[in-house]
This record gives sequence, structure tokens and C-alpha cells, in this order.
Amino acid sequence: MNTWEANIRKVVPYTPGEQPNEPDMIKLNTNENPYPPAPGVTKALKEIHTDTLRLYPDPTAGDLVHAIAQNYGLKDEQVFVGVGSDDVLAMSFLTFFNSEKPVLFPDITYSFYDVWADLFRIPYECKALDENFCIRKEDYFGENGGIIFPNPNAPTGVELPLSDIEEILQHNQDVIVIVDEAYVDFGARSALELIDKYENLLVVQTFSKSRSMAGMRIGFACGNAQLIKYLNDVKYSFNSYTMDRTTLATGVAAIEDQAYFQETCAKIIATREWTKKELAALGFSFPDSKTNFIFASHESCPASELFGALRQEHIYVRYFPKPRIDNHLRITVGTQEEMEKLIEFLKKYLKK
Amino acid sequence: MNTWEANIRKVVPYTPGEQPNEPDMIKLNTNENPYPPAPGVTKALKEIHTDTLRLYPDPTAGDLVHAIAQNYGLKDEQVFVGVGSDDVLAMSFLTFFNSEKPVLFPDITYSFYDVWADLFRIPYECKALDENFCIRKEDYFGENGGIIFPNPNAPTGVELPLSDIEEILQHNQDVIVIVDEAYVDFGARSALELIDKYENLLVVQTFSKSRSMAGMRIGFACGNAQLIKYLNDVKYSFNSYTMDRTTLATGVAAIEDQAYFQETCAKIIATREWTKKELAALGFSFPDSKTNFIFASHESCPASELFGALRQEHIYVRYFPKPRIDNHLRITVGTQEEMEKLIEFLKKYLKK
Repeated sequence: MNTWEANIRKVVPYTPGEQPNEPDMIKLNTNENPYPPAPGVTKALKEIHTDTLRLYPDPTAGDLVHAIAQNYGLKDEQVFVGVGSDDVLAMSFLTFFNSEKPVLFPDITYSFYDVWADLFRIPYECKALDENFCIRKEDYFGENGGIIFPNPNAPTGVELPLSDIEEILQHNQDVIVIVDEAYVDFGARSALELIDKYENLLVVQTFSKSRSMAGMRIGFACGNAQLIKYLNDVKYSFNSYTMDRTTLATGVAAIEDQAYFQETCAKIIATREWTKKELAALGFSFPDSKTNFIFASHESCPASELFGALRQEHIYVRYFPKPRIDNHLRITVGTQEEMEKLIEFLKKYLKK
Repeated sequence: MNTWEANIRKVVPYTPGEQPNEPDMIKLNTNENPYPPAPGVTKALKEIHTDTLRLYPDPTAGDLVHAIAQNYGLKDEQVFVGVGSDDVLAMSFLTFFNSEKPVLFPDITYSFYDVWADLFRIPYECKALDENFCIRKEDYFGENGGIIFPNPNAPTGVELPLSDIEEILQHNQDVIVIVDEAYVDFGARSALELIDKYENLLVVQTFSKSRSMAGMRIGFACGNAQLIKYLNDVKYSFNSYTMDRTTLATGVAAIEDQAYFQETCAKIIATREWTKKELAALGFSFPDSKTNFIFASHESCPASELFGALRQEHIYVRYFPKPRIDNHLRITVGTQEEMEKLIEFLKKYLKK
């Protein structure tokens, strides 16, 4: 080792899902939306004058913050924006999780949580989901340095009822509780309605899934104004200008079109429900998903085998070779046509 | 204080320069380029299909990394990209400055360095510039936990000769030395030619100044492949997808047009030299700037007064009410026409 390596922070980085790029592929591996962003996004992009790109963007991302606040009936000072919800969550770990006590999150969950904890040297403890992949609320009633979980959970797709979330909050008034709602728009109930009641609650959402904007990197957090101020202070201490001009313009257009948003989510939910029936008929089982993916296991064919077989057909799904979930596939809900092709192949492959 | 506030990281954030937005203003306060980005940027923006925005961008930012590497005759694995050079520098502080010994930087310098050190709880020590605002290389020969300085320095505009940088490197083989070259393209000599010789040297640059892309947030670091790997590991542990699709496309277009880049820089340098003469004739003094700004002090009129007077005319410059520099104005070099208006006003105001 070179002597200059002594003081370097060495980490095992998060491995993002692969991003294959083949013309005929069916890409069901990173929970992207199969439908394009709202039509207004095209217009917003066209209207950007290249000359303005020489100027710094608004560091407060004021227009975007305002559009999000309006959409959810909040005040601007209750909204924080970042470069995707990963950026928002990373800033939140850095800002809020500074206790000696462990931060709590589920054992099967978004695989970035332990990566951030390791990066920032935050102690943490994983609480096992029950045998149906459900969060046991009682696990989160003890002493801790903060709590985070996705709702619905990933990669399971399971929703925790809002009443359970409220019970967790009632037992945790002294720490920050973060509900990571990346997939909430596909049929689950948001904890946003609780932020005025619990000032230590932060709700994080993203434009990457339900708003078809994974390529533009927009995430946001909602909470009481004091929490948002602390988050902004850290953000301004890290990088003042995170949201570029095209992101700000297209982001506003994406959130303003409520009708398109609802229509797109409804289509995905309908296709998901159709796919569930077909998968069940083929011998798959899965927890009831309230997201844009299905976490499925087959009664006889191992997930790893299916993963490889689908891949050969250029149908990409996600497989996690991890304890407890290494016989499951996480299948993103694509268009109805894509899911019909998937089912058609599975029927053939499983000889049903 | 609420009990949940106990474990929150509380920081004094960096205050970005104000971003006024008035139709008739002359904006010389945040060192933006007065000329638009390369013509190819407009084309790149037009060619983005909105439909692709639903997909995650390439997490490796491969095309942009490759374009930068090609431009500087480097290998792709010697280049790291981030959301502006602030993002690159923040990641570098987090990755490389983990010693118990203090990181060293000048007392008068980019005002974000101490903010990052405070944010990440990194010990640091400021070394005073000499009376001519020059870095004294000997100050950096002692034991330390890492070194960072801008070259040319900001907000002074003073260049440190490459031979001095090399001497600093020779005295510091055991720590990471970062040369922050945000302004290097306006006539200074880059330390890039030293990265193959010193594997602990990281050179950071930006698209925000010389490439007219402040609004798109692109910065980059060059160094040996091992340094870049450590930086990428931390970046992937923080946020895998930092560079959005429009940034990647426009960034490639911006760096590929070498002729436009050289022409723009030459125009700014010519205007800077003209402005220096005019300012000197008006009784201003300033260190010799190799940047796109001039750090000037008037023989009789206090900087704070001039700042206010210019502001009333909607001419915005930067004023730092800090020890040693509170009688200076940092004046960005705008177009020739803008600088003529500035000089015209100063002549009138100073009754010359």
C-alpha cells in the first residue's frame, strides 16, 4: 500500500442495477416507468435557451420546491429537493443520524441504507421482517438513534399500514423517523398526512418512478420547516447548486400535470394486477405488491435459473443473491404489452 | 430545543453569491462566463428524446468521462465527474481527508474549504498568504493531513508557479494534494502535466467558468486511476446516479468544441487585460489576475461604498466583508461591452 493511502475512506460501494441497452430488450430490472414523462416536459426542454446555461441555477430550486409544495398542499419551507431520492436520503443520514445509538431499519430493505451508514460511520441494527416479509412494528419501539424504512418496502413491495407507522412514531418522539416512499404512488397510503402532527417525521419521495423522470434525478423530502432547514443547511455546506437548469424546468412541468400522473399510475396498477393473476396461475407466489414491481418466487423453478433464462431472451429482471430472498425475482411492471410477452415466455419456459 | 434535535448535525452553511435577476443588470458577481456554451450544446439539447428521461442515466457517466479524458490525453480511469466542482471537492474531502492531522489551505481562499472541513469534522489549519496575496510554499512543507488550494487562487486571482506546486508535492508524498483549478483556463498553467509523476495529486476543474456551463453543474477530477477509484467508491456509496441525461449529453458537446473554447477564453483574457489598464488608470490596484475576475482595491474609495454604488446601477460585483480583504471587490470579467459600461460608471463615480 502506498503511504498516501493511509487516510483514505475505503468503502464497499452500492452496486446499482445493471443498465443494459439493447434495442429489443424488455427492461424490468430497475423499476423505471414504462411510460414517458408528462407532455409538458418536452415543451419545457424545448423552451430552455442554451444561453442561460452559462448562468448558475437558482440554488434554492425555488420554482421546483414551490411546485412540489403546491401539489401536496404544503408550504415551500416544508419541502427539500435533491439529485434523486438517493441524494435526499444520503443528506438525511448525514444530517439526522448522529447518535451513538443504532439507527434501525429492516433486514430486507433498500440495499443503500447500510451503505450510507457505513460511509458515514453510523451504527445501525437491522430488524428482521416476519415470515411474510412484513415489518413488525414492535421491533422499532426500543431505544435507537433514528429509524428509516421504505413504505411500501423494497424489494418486497409490502405496505405497512399508516396506523402502524403512527404507532412507531408515538414510540419515537426523540429521534428522526424517515419514511422512504419511492413507490407510494402505486396504490399505498402516504405518511405525508402525518407531518403536521409529528415534527420528527420526514417523508421522502422521488420523480424517478411514478413521474417517469429517473433520467433527470429529482427526489424530495417533506417535513416540518425546522427539519427542512437543518437539511438545507447541510446541503448548502456540501454543494450549493445541486439542481441544474434543465432539471428545474422539466421537474416543474412533470409535477404540474396531475391528470397525466394519475392516468399513468392507474395504467401501471391495472397491468400489475393482471400480471399478479397470471403469475399466480403459473405457480408463482408473492407478497401483495403496492408498488410498480412484483417480488415473486416460483414453486419449483429456482429464481437464479429463471433470471438466467429471462436474460437470454433479453428480458431483464432483478435478482438479489442474498439470504432469505435468493429465491425471488423482483419484476418491474412494464407496459401491458411487455408483461404479456413476459408471461408468454414464462408459460413456454415453465411448460404450463 | 425539541428532544429530537439532539443528534442533528448543525452547521453554518456556505453562503452562495446572490443570484439577482433583473433584465438590465450587469452580472459580474459569480464569475460566470459572459458567452453562451458551445453551439453543439444547443444541438445536443434539441436531440434529447423526452421518452428516454424515464430511464436512469449511465451511472458511470461513461461518455462524458471519455470526452474529458480524450480532451486532456488521459485514460478514462483517470477521470471522475460530479455535480459541479463543489460536488467533486466535497466527495474529495470525504474520501481523502481522514487524518487526525490538520488539512492545510490558505487563509484567503475559496470559502467552501472550511465549510466542508466543519461539515465532515476534519481538522484544518489555514496558512496566511503573504502581503501580496501569494501562497508561501514553505508553509506547506510541515506535517499535515492533506493539502488543498486553488490555482489560480480565489478570490485573489494569483497564480502559483508550477515549480512551487511541484516543490509542495515533493514535500508531501504521504497525503493527498488537491489543486483546485476552477479558473486555470484563463491563462494559468495546469498541474495536469504532473499527475503521472505524482500519484497522490488530484487536479479538479469545472465546466462552470471557461465552458459556460454553470447552469448544468459539471465538475471533474483527474488523477491516477487508484485515486479515482477511491473517489468513485465513495460517490457510489453516496449517490449512484448523480449526472442526469441532459447534463451528460450537453457536457460532451461542451467539451468537444475545442475551437470555440479557445476563442471564448481568448476574448475574456483580452477584455481582462483591457479592464486591468482602465482600473489602474482609475486608481485601483490588484494582484495580477490569471482568472476571469479581478480582485481590486481603490486608493481612496472604500470597497464597501463602491459595492453599494455599483449595485444601485444594477452592476453586481462580489464583496467579502472578511479580515484582510474587506477593502477589495471581486469583479468578474464580462463582455467587452459590459466592462466598458463598468469603467464608464466608475469614471463618473470617482470623478476622474
